[in-house]
Amino acid sequence: MDRITLDYTNALATTIGPDHGVREAELGDMQGVLSEAQQQVEGRRAKDLRWLDLPYQSAVHQDILRYAEEVQGQFENVVVLGIGGSALGNRALHSALNSPFHELSPPNGAPRLFILDNVDPDLVGEFLDTIDVTKSLFNVISKSGSTAETMSQFLIFRRALIERLGEEGHKPHVVVTTDAEAGVLRPIVQSEGYRSFIVPDGVGGRFSVLSPVGLLSSALVGIDILGLLKGAADMDKRCRLKPWNENPAMVYAAMQWILQERKDKNIAVTFAYGHRLRDLADWYAQLLGESIGKVKTSAEGKTHVGPTPVRAVGVTDQHSQVQLYVEGPFDKWFTLLEIGQHDHRVQIPTDYGDKDALAYLGGRSLSELLAAEREGTRIALTEAGRPNVSIRFPRVTAHTVGQYMYLKDYAVALMGELYGIDAFDQPGVEAGKIAAYALMGRKGFDDRAAQIQQQQDKESRTV
Amino acid sequence: MDRITLDYTNALATTIGPDHGVREAELGDMQGVLSEAQQQVEGRRAKDLRWLDLPYQSAVHQDILRYAEEVQGQFENVVVLGIGGSALGNRALHSALNSPFHELSPPNGAPRLFILDNVDPDLVGEFLDTIDVTKSLFNVISKSGSTAETMSQFLIFRRALIERLGEEGHKPHVVVTTDAEAGVLRPIVQSEGYRSFIVPDGVGGRFSVLSPVGLLSSALVGIDILGLLKGAADMDKRCRLKPWNENPAMVYAAMQWILQERKDKNIAVTFAYGHRLRDLADWYAQLLGESIGKVKTSAEGKTHVGPTPVRAVGVTDQHSQVQLYVEGPFDKWFTLLEIGQHDHRVQIPTDYGDKDALAYLGGRSLSELLAAEREGTRIALTEAGRPNVSIRFPRVTAHTVGQYMYLKDYAVALMGELYGIDAFDQPGVEAGKIAAYALMGRKGFDDRAAQIQQQQDKESRTV
Repeated sequence: MDRITLDYTNALATTIGPDHGVREAELGDMQGVLSEAQQQVEGRRAKDLRWLDLPYQSAVHQDILRYAEEVQGQFENVVVLGIGGSALGNRALHSALNSPFHELSPPNGAPRLFILDNVDPDLVGEFLDTIDVTKSLFNVISKSGSTAETMSQFLIFRRALIERLGEEGHKPHVVVTTDAEAGVLRPIVQSEGYRSFIVPDGVGGRFSVLSPVGLLSSALVGIDILGLLKGAADMDKRCRLKPWNENPAMVYAAMQWILQERKDKNIAVTFAYGHRLRDLADWYAQLLGESIGKVKTSAEGKTHVGPTPVRAVGVTDQHSQVQLYVEGPFDKWFTLLEIGQHDHRVQIPTDYGDKDALAYLGGRSLSELLAAEREGTRIALTEAGRPNVSIRFPRVTAHTVGQYMYLKDYAVALMGELYGIDAFDQPGVEAGKIAAYALMGRKGFDDRAAQIQQQQDKESRTV
Repeated sequence: MDRITLDYTNALATTIGPDHGVREAELGDMQGVLSEAQQQVEGRRAKDLRWLDLPYQSAVHQDILRYAEEVQGQFENVVVLGIGGSALGNRALHSALNSPFHELSPPNGAPRLFILDNVDPDLVGEFLDTIDVTKSLFNVISKSGSTAETMSQFLIFRRALIERLGEEGHKPHVVVTTDAEAGVLRPIVQSEGYRSFIVPDGVGGRFSVLSPVGLLSSALVGIDILGLLKGAADMDKRCRLKPWNENPAMVYAAMQWILQERKDKNIAVTFAYGHRLRDLADWYAQLLGESIGKVKTSAEGKTHVGPTPVRAVGVTDQHSQVQLYVEGPFDKWFTLLEIGQHDHRVQIPTDYGDKDALAYLGGRSLSELLAAEREGTRIALTEAGRPNVSIRFPRVTAHTVGQYMYLKDYAVALMGELYGIDAFDQPGVEAGKIAAYALMGRKGFDDRAAQIQQQQDKESRTV
């Protein structure tokens, strides 16, 4: 079985020294709090953390596969209208499991996939100018139906479809993923008769990739969603083990907590050694940043906690960020994503063998070069005293990616307990939303609008 | 004239308070060191910082334009083989100034642009399977000709071309950008008879976007390189002004230095409000990270300095990172990139006007929505005491992007002086390179290879 592993040797004090490394005894001493955290999380599995059980909703999975089969060949394009948790997982799966040139040359019968997670008119307008909406299926994703970005796009593309295909004709081009009953989109689904899927309760946006939110577009572009879910289920088993050193979610959560709270590593870098894994880092950036970046209220007052996620791609960012990583401040720790075996084998020719700077390359494969550079970076980070762990994918398949995503979901839930914050809310986004409503003239926000106007009239400093 | 501006009101203590804000007097007090830094930089303009004069090399610019005209219509694809500073600027220019769907539907006559800045076999192999090399022009970019990634790709694609087009026939498909005399590639250019351009001396990789490194691929895909260079020249004038409050490079450099060194903001977020500006943030991540992330040696010993660049895209990352930015630790400062006028106008239809959550959207444009959300985020950051500045692009044009890039180049050079480090070297990447050479079996690295082997035999901790 293709099982992903987590190697934490190079985050240990025995490897990188006691200043920046974690002592194994320190990990062992966390067994109690880790078990308690696990118990807390498991206690909510059937209540408000239903995302934990997403791998087992086989009726839902069958529905998705049936729909994908039903519409197969009907659309040139699948267009996701969603943002944040309704986009990042979809993109991560697509880039990990399909060709980087999928949109230029989709394998026979498969549609192209576009994920429009911005309202920038130069993105949406250019899309309208380039892509034939009549050959497209729009997957609108919003649990509440009140996400301004997604709903604006829905209004725009719905109108564009109606203009070309008529009121009735446009309907098969829309499929909605939203709440079962509540919110703005469900009544629209009912009155228009759109096809729809459900975002279940207890599944917050950033934990929703294994629900219809992430699965539908994946199934439509030919990703093996059952393999993905099997991977998640396999990881679920490992995350429920009790001993910390057999449980990768416990090790990962404990590392994150110790390295930030005791070793002052405020920055968590995901260094994906593989072009295909690049968007998994962006997906995790939301999961980690939005879940753990919180105001913490305790007896001592308010503190501001949370690691800052950073994405890097190997080998690319060796030529951009490694200088900083090796010589800059000791404020980072690293998760290297490593691929055992690639799908392609590309050999480097032996030309110009008389030149030293080229001779050692000839006859080797690109995966050997990639591996050597990855090891080179790992060694350089370790020797510079920078804590790093490695998550190894034997191959990049739906099954290993499913394991990875579930591991991170579960680890972040544990981190919430360790940091002592609510990992499942996002109160910090309200202020900006309210200000934007006020500026857009939404009913009920007039006072705030006046207040903002007053502030903006103040003198500014500009050069 | 379309002039970009830097608004620093919301980084000032008068706006966000003295804990996290900068006092204007503090900026004023830096006039002396800023002038000195400027003098240092200007003193090297004709010596080892020749990138400062890149906007004025009109003979080179004409050469590039002539070549672009000469090959116009001959190639379906332009493929950049380069990494780090030989890729990030090219990509930033392409995504800022061409359609996000350029590769799907290039405007008439223009080639598609691919920038292969990774050796991942699943990227390169898939590229070989998808793209017809006989319809492609390969722009190999490496000053030294010893960049392992670029040279491997050169060997691979050169062989693929020769197999299909023969020894003579393949030559017009390669254009090399390298050192005028030194290095591995120049003799290859001479013996093969490839077309070539020069990476001038005194132009380090991350400062090379306005040299043939960045200009050639840009000209080939129809970017107005003269407009870009005019923008850079216009900004050069502003960067040479003496009073700090008339000089955007001085203000930006001083802000970065004060906010990190006196206010503990270790993280510099570029929050690009505009899909088109997203890759400018990655380009700057290299420029800032590799230039300032250094071991600093002084009388007090060694310290590790440098901000960590983070990229965010608005409105997208409001649904991913803003929670952390507003509530998390006070370890960040923000540069918002703002677009005055977009090229496209997209109107939101007035359907479903009976629903409160949609009614306020109808009749507004997407650029109004984007602007309201951007202001909402700015207000939320400011009210949460998070220092932020705004760089305003009246429109996104070659001229404004040229200003922006030159501003950042110049500001980083000033930062080098303020931080007291060499902004133009990258000694921290050597260790990883050497380890990779050893692992690849390069001649002369056997001892290191044996040493690494020994270390890797040690017991590991894996879960």
